[in-house]
Amino acid sequence: MNNVAEPQAKVNPVITAEQLLEHWQGHRRLTRRAIEVYPEDKFFTYSIGGMRPFADLIMEMLAMPEEGLKGAITGDWLKGEDVNKLFARKAPATKADILRLWDETTEKINELWPKIPAHRFQENDMAFGMYEGQIYWTILYFIDNEIHHRGQGYVYLRSLGIEPPAFWERN
Amino acid sequence: MNNVAEPQAKVNPVITAEQLLEHWQGHRRLTRRAIEVYPEDKFFTYSIGGMRPFADLIMEMLAMPEEGLKGAITGDWLKGEDVNKLFARKAPATKADILRLWDETTEKINELWPKIPAHRFQENDMAFGMYEGQIYWTILYFIDNEIHHRGQGYVYLRSLGIEPPAFWERN
Repeated sequence: MNNVAEPQAKVNPVITAEQLLEHWQGHRRLTRRAIEVYPEDKFFTYSIGGMRPFADLIMEMLAMPEEGLKGAITGDWLKGEDVNKLFARKAPATKADILRLWDETTEKINELWPKIPAHRFQENDMAFGMYEGQIYWTILYFIDNEIHHRGQGYVYLRSLGIEPPAFWERN
Repeated sequence: MNNVAEPQAKVNPVITAEQLLEHWQGHRRLTRRAIEVYPEDKFFTYSIGGMRPFADLIMEMLAMPEEGLKGAITGDWLKGEDVNKLFARKAPATKADILRLWDETTEKINELWPKIPAHRFQENDMAFGMYEGQIYWTILYFIDNEIHHRGQGYVYLRSLGIEPPAFWERN
Protein backbone atom coordinates (compact mmCIF):
# COMPACT_ATOMS: atom_id res chain seq x y z
CA MET A 1 0.00 0.00 0.00
CA ASN A 2 2.88 2.34 0.81
CA ASN A 3 6.56 2.17 1.70
CA VAL A 4 5.82 1.81 5.39
CA ALA A 5 3.09 -0.81 5.33
CA GLU A 6 5.05 -3.55 3.55
CA PRO A 7 7.99 -3.93 6.00
CA GLN A 8 5.45 -3.65 8.86
CA ALA A 9 3.57 -6.65 7.53
CA LYS A 10 6.83 -8.63 7.67
CA VAL A 11 7.66 -7.88 11.28
CA ASN A 12 4.04 -7.97 12.45
CA PRO A 13 2.80 -11.47 11.73
CA VAL A 14 -0.95 -12.04 11.76
CA ILE A 15 -0.30 -15.31 13.57
CA THR A 16 2.91 -17.22 14.21
CA ALA A 17 3.38 -20.94 13.62
CA GLU A 18 3.52 -21.51 17.40
CA GLN A 19 0.24 -19.65 17.86
CA LEU A 20 -1.47 -21.63 15.10
CA LEU A 21 -0.35 -24.86 16.76
CA GLU A 22 -1.74 -23.66 20.11
CA HIS A 23 -4.97 -22.59 18.39
CA TRP A 24 -5.35 -26.06 16.90
CA GLN A 25 -4.53 -27.86 20.13
CA GLY A 26 -7.01 -25.59 21.95
CA HIS A 27 -9.73 -26.76 19.58
CA ARG A 28 -8.57 -30.34 20.05
CA ARG A 29 -8.83 -30.01 23.83
CA LEU A 30 -12.43 -28.84 23.36
CA THR A 31 -13.23 -31.76 21.04
CA ARG A 32 -11.73 -34.12 23.59
CA ARG A 33 -14.16 -32.77 26.20
CA ALA A 34 -17.05 -33.29 23.77
CA ILE A 35 -16.00 -36.95 23.45
CA GLU A 36 -15.76 -37.25 27.24
CA VAL A 37 -19.33 -36.07 27.90
CA TYR A 38 -20.77 -38.26 25.12
CA PRO A 39 -22.69 -41.32 26.39
CA GLU A 40 -20.67 -44.46 25.61
CA ASP A 41 -23.54 -46.38 23.98
CA LYS A 42 -24.64 -43.47 21.76
CA PHE A 43 -21.14 -42.49 20.71
CA PHE A 44 -20.85 -45.25 18.10
CA THR A 45 -24.47 -45.45 16.93
CA TYR A 46 -26.50 -42.28 17.42
CA SER A 47 -27.03 -39.93 14.49
CA ILE A 48 -29.48 -37.46 12.99
CA GLY A 49 -30.66 -37.18 9.39
CA GLY A 50 -28.65 -40.14 8.14
CA MET A 51 -25.35 -38.53 9.12
CA ARG A 52 -22.42 -40.42 10.59
CA PRO A 53 -22.30 -41.14 14.34
CA PHE A 54 -19.93 -38.94 16.35
CA ALA A 55 -17.36 -41.79 16.56
CA ASP A 56 -17.00 -41.75 12.77
CA LEU A 57 -16.67 -37.96 12.66
CA ILE A 58 -13.93 -38.24 15.29
CA MET A 59 -12.15 -40.92 13.23
CA GLU A 60 -12.11 -38.46 10.31
CA MET A 61 -10.50 -35.84 12.59
CA LEU A 62 -7.93 -38.45 13.62
CA ALA A 63 -7.11 -39.41 10.03
CA MET A 64 -5.70 -36.06 8.92
CA PRO A 65 -3.13 -34.66 11.37
CA GLU A 66 -0.22 -37.10 11.28
CA GLU A 67 -0.15 -37.83 7.55
CA GLY A 68 -1.19 -34.22 6.81
CA LEU A 69 1.72 -32.79 8.77
CA LYS A 70 4.16 -35.28 7.24
CA GLY A 71 3.05 -34.03 3.83
CA ALA A 72 3.31 -30.41 4.94
CA ILE A 73 6.86 -31.01 6.17
CA THR A 74 8.20 -33.06 3.27
CA GLY A 75 5.93 -32.46 0.29
CA ASP A 76 5.70 -36.24 0.11
CA TRP A 77 2.04 -37.19 0.60
CA LEU A 78 0.20 -40.39 1.22
CA LYS A 79 -1.74 -40.93 -2.03
CA GLY A 80 -4.53 -42.86 -3.70
CA GLU A 81 -5.49 -46.18 -2.16
CA ASP A 82 -3.41 -45.44 0.96
CA VAL A 83 -5.50 -42.29 1.56
CA ASN A 84 -8.70 -44.28 1.13
CA LYS A 85 -7.46 -46.79 3.68
CA LEU A 86 -6.48 -44.03 6.12
CA PHE A 87 -9.95 -42.45 5.95
CA ALA A 88 -11.70 -45.82 6.10
CA ARG A 89 -10.15 -46.80 9.44
CA LYS A 90 -12.89 -48.14 11.70
CA ALA A 91 -13.43 -46.68 15.14
CA PRO A 92 -12.14 -48.84 18.00
CA ALA A 93 -14.67 -50.45 20.34
CA THR A 94 -14.69 -48.02 23.26
CA LYS A 95 -14.51 -44.30 23.99
CA ALA A 96 -11.42 -45.00 26.11
CA ASP A 97 -9.71 -46.43 23.01
CA ILE A 98 -10.65 -43.35 20.96
CA LEU A 99 -9.38 -41.03 23.70
CA ARG A 100 -6.09 -42.93 23.68
CA LEU A 101 -5.81 -42.44 19.90
CA TRP A 102 -6.72 -38.78 20.44
CA ASP A 103 -3.90 -38.27 22.94
CA GLU A 104 -1.39 -40.09 20.75
CA THR A 105 -2.34 -37.77 17.90
CA THR A 106 -1.94 -34.75 20.20
CA GLU A 107 1.63 -35.82 20.91
CA LYS A 108 2.30 -36.59 17.26
CA ILE A 109 1.11 -33.09 16.23
CA ASN A 110 3.34 -31.46 18.85
CA GLU A 111 6.29 -33.52 17.66
CA LEU A 112 5.80 -32.89 13.93
CA TRP A 113 4.71 -29.25 13.99
CA PRO A 114 8.13 -27.63 14.64
CA LYS A 115 9.50 -29.57 11.66
CA ILE A 116 7.35 -27.65 9.16
CA PRO A 117 9.85 -25.44 7.31
CA ALA A 118 8.78 -21.79 7.65
CA HIS A 119 8.54 -21.27 3.88
CA ARG A 120 6.16 -24.23 3.47
CA PHE A 121 3.08 -22.41 4.87
CA GLN A 122 2.90 -20.25 1.74
CA GLU A 123 3.82 -22.99 -0.72
CA ASN A 124 1.27 -24.47 -3.04
CA ASP A 125 0.98 -28.24 -2.87
CA MET A 126 -1.39 -31.10 -3.59
CA ALA A 127 -2.47 -32.40 -0.18
CA PHE A 128 -2.98 -36.17 -0.15
CA GLY A 129 -2.25 -36.09 -3.87
CA MET A 130 -5.58 -34.41 -4.67
CA TYR A 131 -6.40 -31.23 -2.71
CA GLU A 132 -4.56 -28.28 -4.18
CA GLY A 133 -3.79 -25.28 -2.05
CA GLN A 134 -1.22 -23.47 0.01
CA ILE A 135 -0.09 -25.36 3.10
CA TYR A 136 -1.61 -22.77 5.48
CA TRP A 137 -4.96 -23.40 3.79
CA THR A 138 -4.62 -27.16 4.11
CA ILE A 139 -3.80 -26.87 7.82
CA LEU A 140 -6.72 -24.48 8.38
CA TYR A 141 -8.86 -27.05 6.59
CA PHE A 142 -7.91 -29.70 9.18
CA ILE A 143 -8.88 -27.30 11.99
CA ASP A 144 -12.07 -26.02 10.31
CA ASN A 145 -13.19 -29.55 9.49
CA GLU A 146 -12.87 -30.44 13.17
CA ILE A 147 -14.87 -27.36 14.25
CA HIS A 148 -17.54 -28.19 11.65
CA HIS A 149 -18.00 -31.79 12.71
CA ARG A 150 -17.69 -31.06 16.43
CA GLY A 151 -20.51 -28.50 16.01
CA GLN A 152 -22.56 -31.33 14.55
CA GLY A 153 -21.71 -33.49 17.56
CA TYR A 154 -23.04 -30.65 19.75
CA VAL A 155 -26.46 -31.01 18.07
CA TYR A 156 -26.40 -34.77 18.69
CA LEU A 157 -25.53 -34.09 22.35
CA ARG A 158 -28.28 -31.47 22.77
CA SER A 159 -30.82 -33.79 21.17
CA LEU A 160 -29.78 -36.39 23.76
CA GLY A 161 -30.39 -33.84 26.51
CA ILE A 162 -26.69 -33.40 27.27
CA GLU A 163 -24.99 -30.02 27.65
CA PRO A 164 -21.90 -29.79 25.43
CA PRO A 165 -18.69 -28.16 26.74
CA ALA A 166 -18.47 -24.37 26.40
CA PHE A 167 -17.36 -23.46 22.86
CA TRP A 168 -15.12 -20.59 23.96
CA GLU A 169 -13.21 -22.63 26.55
CA ARG A 170 -10.01 -24.02 25.02
CA ASN A 171 -7.79 -24.77 28.00
CA MET B 1 15.20 -22.39 17.85
CA ASN B 2 18.39 -21.34 16.09
CA ASN B 3 19.86 -18.27 14.39
CA VAL B 4 18.33 -19.16 11.07
CA ALA B 5 14.76 -19.98 12.07
CA GLU B 6 13.88 -16.65 13.65
CA PRO B 7 14.54 -14.34 10.65
CA GLN B 8 12.88 -16.95 8.40
CA ALA B 9 9.68 -16.73 10.44
CA LYS B 10 9.62 -12.99 9.78
CA VAL B 11 9.87 -13.19 6.01
CA ASN B 12 7.75 -16.34 5.72
CA PRO B 13 4.35 -15.48 7.17
CA VAL B 14 2.08 -18.37 8.12
CA ILE B 15 -0.82 -16.39 6.67
CA THR B 16 -1.07 -12.79 5.54
CA ALA B 17 -3.86 -10.39 6.52
CA GLU B 18 -5.18 -10.51 2.94
CA GLN B 19 -5.26 -14.31 3.03
CA LEU B 20 -7.08 -14.35 6.36
CA LEU B 21 -9.70 -11.99 4.95
CA GLU B 22 -10.15 -14.23 1.92
CA HIS B 23 -10.35 -17.29 4.20
CA TRP B 24 -13.12 -15.61 6.20
CA GLN B 25 -15.04 -14.45 3.15
CA GLY B 26 -14.73 -17.96 1.69
CA HIS B 27 -16.43 -19.34 4.79
CA ARG B 28 -19.03 -16.59 4.56
CA ARG B 29 -19.80 -17.52 0.95
CA LEU B 30 -20.39 -21.09 2.10
CA THR B 31 -22.66 -19.95 4.94
CA ARG B 32 -24.59 -17.82 2.45
CA ARG B 33 -25.23 -20.93 0.36
CA ALA B 34 -26.45 -22.78 3.46
CA ILE B 35 -28.97 -19.96 4.01
CA GLU B 36 -30.04 -20.13 0.37
CA VAL B 37 -30.89 -23.85 0.44
CA TYR B 38 -32.74 -23.56 3.77
CA PRO B 39 -36.54 -23.80 3.46
CA GLU B 40 -38.05 -20.36 4.16
CA ASP B 41 -40.64 -21.59 6.68
CA LYS B 42 -38.16 -23.70 8.67
CA PHE B 43 -35.41 -21.10 8.69
CA PHE B 44 -36.99 -19.07 11.52
CA THR B 45 -38.58 -21.85 13.54
CA TYR B 46 -36.97 -25.27 13.13
CA SER B 47 -34.53 -26.52 15.72
CA ILE B 48 -33.24 -29.65 17.43
CA GLY B 49 -32.67 -30.29 21.13
CA GLY B 50 -33.91 -26.88 22.25
CA MET B 51 -31.24 -25.07 20.27
CA ARG B 52 -31.80 -21.80 18.42
CA PRO B 53 -33.27 -21.86 14.89
CA PHE B 54 -30.77 -21.26 12.07
CA ALA B 55 -32.03 -17.66 11.65
CA ASP B 56 -30.91 -16.84 15.20
CA LEU B 57 -27.51 -18.49 14.69
CA ILE B 58 -27.09 -16.40 11.53
CA MET B 59 -28.01 -13.23 13.45
CA GLU B 60 -25.20 -14.04 15.89
CA MET B 61 -22.78 -14.35 12.94
CA LEU B 62 -24.03 -10.97 11.70
CA ALA B 63 -23.57 -9.29 15.08
CA MET B 64 -19.81 -9.65 15.34
CA PRO B 65 -18.01 -8.56 12.17
CA GLU B 66 -18.67 -4.81 11.89
CA GLU B 67 -18.33 -3.86 15.55
CA GLY B 68 -15.61 -6.48 16.03
CA LEU B 69 -13.48 -5.04 13.23
CA LYS B 70 -14.06 -1.48 14.45
CA GLY B 71 -12.71 -2.58 17.83
CA ALA B 72 -9.79 -4.38 16.19
CA ILE B 73 -8.92 -1.24 14.23
CA THR B 74 -9.31 1.35 16.98
CA GLY B 75 -9.14 -0.46 20.32
CA ASP B 76 -12.42 1.31 21.07
CA TRP B 77 -15.08 -1.37 21.62
CA LEU B 78 -18.81 -1.38 21.92
CA LYS B 79 -19.40 -2.28 25.57
CA GLY B 80 -21.94 -3.43 28.14
CA GLU B 81 -25.58 -2.76 27.34
CA ASP B 82 -24.74 -1.82 23.74
CA VAL B 83 -23.20 -5.28 23.23
CA ASN B 84 -26.29 -6.92 24.71
CA LYS B 85 -28.45 -4.92 22.29
CA LEU B 86 -26.24 -5.85 19.33
CA PHE B 87 -26.48 -9.56 20.11
CA ALA B 88 -30.21 -9.34 20.87
CA ARG B 89 -31.12 -7.99 17.43
CA LYS B 90 -34.11 -9.93 16.11
CA ALA B 91 -33.95 -11.62 12.75
CA PRO B 92 -35.86 -9.82 9.98
CA ALA B 93 -39.01 -11.46 8.59
CA THR B 94 -37.65 -13.14 5.44
CA LYS B 95 -34.61 -14.99 4.17
CA ALA B 96 -34.25 -12.32 1.49
CA ASP B 97 -33.89 -9.71 4.23
CA ILE B 98 -31.23 -11.79 6.00
CA LEU B 99 -29.34 -12.29 2.75
CA ARG B 100 -29.40 -8.52 2.22
CA LEU B 101 -27.93 -8.01 5.71
CA TRP B 102 -25.39 -10.73 4.90
CA ASP B 103 -24.24 -8.97 1.75
CA GLU B 104 -24.06 -5.60 3.49
CA THR B 105 -21.85 -7.19 6.13
CA THR B 106 -19.65 -8.74 3.41
CA GLU B 107 -19.05 -5.25 2.01
CA LYS B 108 -18.48 -3.77 5.45
CA ILE B 109 -15.86 -6.43 6.25
CA ASN B 110 -14.04 -5.76 2.97
CA GLU B 111 -14.11 -2.03 3.68
CA LEU B 112 -12.90 -2.24 7.30
CA TRP B 113 -10.34 -5.06 7.00
CA PRO B 114 -7.50 -3.09 5.33
CA LYS B 115 -7.78 -0.51 8.11
CA ILE B 116 -6.56 -2.97 10.77
CA PRO B 117 -3.06 -1.72 11.64
CA ALA B 118 -0.55 -4.54 11.07
CA HIS B 119 0.68 -4.48 14.67
CA ARG B 120 -2.84 -4.93 16.05
CA PHE B 121 -3.11 -8.66 15.20
CA GLN B 122 -0.62 -9.49 17.93
CA GLU B 123 -1.90 -6.98 20.47
CA ASN B 124 -3.79 -8.05 23.52
CA ASP B 125 -7.17 -6.39 23.95
CA MET B 126 -10.53 -6.82 25.63
CA ALA B 127 -12.97 -7.53 22.79
CA PHE B 128 -16.41 -6.04 23.41
CA GLY B 129 -15.09 -4.95 26.80
CA MET B 130 -15.05 -8.52 28.13
CA TYR B 131 -13.23 -11.12 26.02
CA GLU B 132 -9.50 -10.87 26.56
CA GLY B 133 -7.12 -12.07 23.90
CA GLN B 134 -4.87 -11.09 21.05
CA ILE B 135 -6.68 -9.61 18.07
CA TYR B 136 -5.79 -12.55 15.80
CA TRP B 137 -7.50 -14.81 18.33
CA THR B 138 -10.60 -12.64 18.46
CA ILE B 139 -10.87 -12.63 14.66
CA LEU B 140 -10.36 -16.40 14.49
CA TYR B 141 -13.12 -16.62 17.09
CA PHE B 142 -15.54 -14.84 14.74
CA ILE B 143 -14.65 -17.29 11.95
CA ASP B 144 -14.66 -20.40 14.15
CA ASN B 145 -17.98 -19.43 15.72
CA GLU B 146 -19.47 -19.21 12.22
CA ILE B 147 -18.07 -22.64 11.24
CA HIS B 148 -19.40 -24.11 14.51
CA HIS B 149 -22.95 -22.79 14.11
CA ARG B 150 -23.07 -23.44 10.37
CA GLY B 151 -22.13 -27.06 11.10
CA GLN B 152 -25.16 -27.16 13.39
CA GLY B 153 -27.31 -25.75 10.59
CA TYR B 154 -26.06 -28.63 8.42
CA VAL B 155 -27.58 -31.11 10.91
CA TYR B 156 -30.89 -29.20 10.83
CA LEU B 157 -30.79 -29.35 7.01
CA ARG B 158 -29.97 -33.07 6.92
CA SER B 159 -32.75 -33.81 9.39
CA LEU B 160 -35.10 -31.95 7.01
CA GLY B 161 -33.90 -34.16 4.17
CA ILE B 162 -31.95 -31.35 2.47
CA GLU B 163 -28.38 -31.72 1.20
CA PRO B 164 -26.18 -28.91 2.56
CA PRO B 165 -23.60 -27.20 0.30
CA ALA B 166 -20.20 -28.93 0.05
CA PHE B 167 -18.05 -27.95 3.04
CA TRP B 168 -14.83 -27.70 1.04
CA GLU B 169 -16.28 -25.38 -1.63
CA ARG B 170 -15.56 -21.75 -0.75
CA ASN B 171 -15.87 -19.89 -4.05
